[in-house]
Amino acid sequence: MFNFEDYTVTKAKRVNQALEEAVPLQYALKIHEAMRYSLLEGGKYVRSIVCIACCELVGGEEALAMPIACTVEMIHTASLIHDDLPCMDNDDLRRGKPTNHILFGEGIAVLAGGGLLCLAFEHVVSKTVSFSSERVVRAIAELSSVVAGWVKRVGGRADDGSLELGETGGGSDEDVERVRIYARRIGLLFQVVDDIVDVTMSSEVLGKTAGKDLVSYMATDPKLMGVNNAKKFAGELVAQAIEELTCFDAAKAAPLYRLAKFIANRDN
Amino acid sequence: MFNFEDYTVTKAKRVNQALEEAVPLQYALKIHEAMRYSLLEGGKYVRSIVCIACCELVGGEEALAMPIACTVEMIHTASLIHDDLPCMDNDDLRRGKPTNHILFGEGIAVLAGGGLLCLAFEHVVSKTVSFSSERVVRAIAELSSVVAGWVKRVGGRADDGSLELGETGGGSDEDVERVRIYARRIGLLFQVVDDIVDVTMSSEVLGKTAGKDLVSYMATDPKLMGVNNAKKFAGELVAQAIEELTCFDAAKAAPLYRLAKFIANRDN
Repeated sequence: MFNFEDYTVTKAKRVNQALEEAVPLQYALKIHEAMRYSLLEGGKYVRSIVCIACCELVGGEEALAMPIACTVEMIHTASLIHDDLPCMDNDDLRRGKPTNHILFGEGIAVLAGGGLLCLAFEHVVSKTVSFSSERVVRAIAELSSVVAGWVKRVGGRADDGSLELGETGGGSDEDVERVRIYARRIGLLFQVVDDIVDVTMSSEVLGKTAGKDLVSYMATDPKLMGVNNAKKFAGELVAQAIEELTCFDAAKAAPLYRLAKFIANRDN
Repeated sequence: MFNFEDYTVTKAKRVNQALEEAVPLQYALKIHEAMRYSLLEGGKYVRSIVCIACCELVGGEEALAMPIACTVEMIHTASLIHDDLPCMDNDDLRRGKPTNHILFGEGIAVLAGGGLLCLAFEHVVSKTVSFSSERVVRAIAELSSVVAGWVKRVGGRADDGSLELGETGGGSDEDVERVRIYARRIGLLFQVVDDIVDVTMSSEVLGKTAGKDLVSYMATDPKLMGVNNAKKFAGELVAQAIEELTCFDAAKAAPLYRLAKFIANRDN
């Protein structure tokens, strides 16, 4: 019987350990301290776990997916550090703890974010030794387009208050393509749920300053479409994501099935 | 007879055009405007030209080197945008014009820098089609280690006032290795000359707020070793860089020879 709790705890521990090794405490100390603070403390590593579970579903081993899982986490963390800056969302709290710039200062936080972005790409090219370079190059193209999407999304708020939705990309192998579509829906779901949670939860539950997105920017999903419609949209995304899993063996697809539900239902 | 002026003007124009196409004005408008402002206006593209000239010296064509030349410029521009931020060097002027955050605001400047870093890696993997993926992966590893060096260098100032110098890496083909060593010396030379210029020139000549590094941070080369020693160090770097060119045909190596001299002697 698949134990979701055990599965995620174990995976998160391994991701944390891999990240610990990927970003050792070294010269320049303050920046590495800052990077490690946001990367290693308090993160649930859900994105990395989705990444590993996707790899496992199509027959790969955890170790194969670990470098890219770490890369995903580094990019995500970089976006969090920069998003929290006073000139952006101006958040003091993240995961119930002081944000990076509150602890280390804005200059270090800017560098830590930029440094993590670069480390992320260096990590995936230097550590992904079991794959062909072609696949590493494809992964980087995919990754950077996702980040470009984040930049557009946040930047779009400054333009006109609208929000861009992700697209699904092409692929060759059918199973891999299904898992890719699943992952993209999950990525979008993440954001929608984030926005819903941000509007509906208190800072205490949330661990970050609640409602900030609404105050600082023109649009988030719930504001554009209302919380109820955003929840409905999130529900559709989960259903669509799970739909992609139906052709897989149910036992094997269990982690991704539960992860989709977990992401949809999380309240912080 | 090799005309250095013509050579650099022509190359700079082509780099500018390639960058113009690489970062079109699109949604999200403000961020793309901000990225294009710092990327397309007023840059001398010396790093890109060095990159292209290195490629040409070892038998490659300009078009082969253009994607990575653009990538180098995007990364460099990202570092400038972030370096100029109020929480970093707090510079109002760059190339005689307002810095990015002065024109677009700090939030957009943070995003524009981060966006350019990601675009840079996306660009090199999506546009470098004539090379094997192995070489693209090697280039990304090299590039991101250079950026990591920049983060360490700037970050190191926050630690203890010291400054890390780059290392030379290993390689296979002798000529390529010589050009690589040349390029690394040139990279270091860039920074040393930058620091000297920053200390010795007025804002009017410089196009950026002069002496800022000394005010805001603990150490730059000239402050650590004095302007005269820094100039001597720069002279040694040029000599060492040019030394790497001696085994090449003099006519073919002329662009790199003149570029080294140009970088050493520039006063803004």
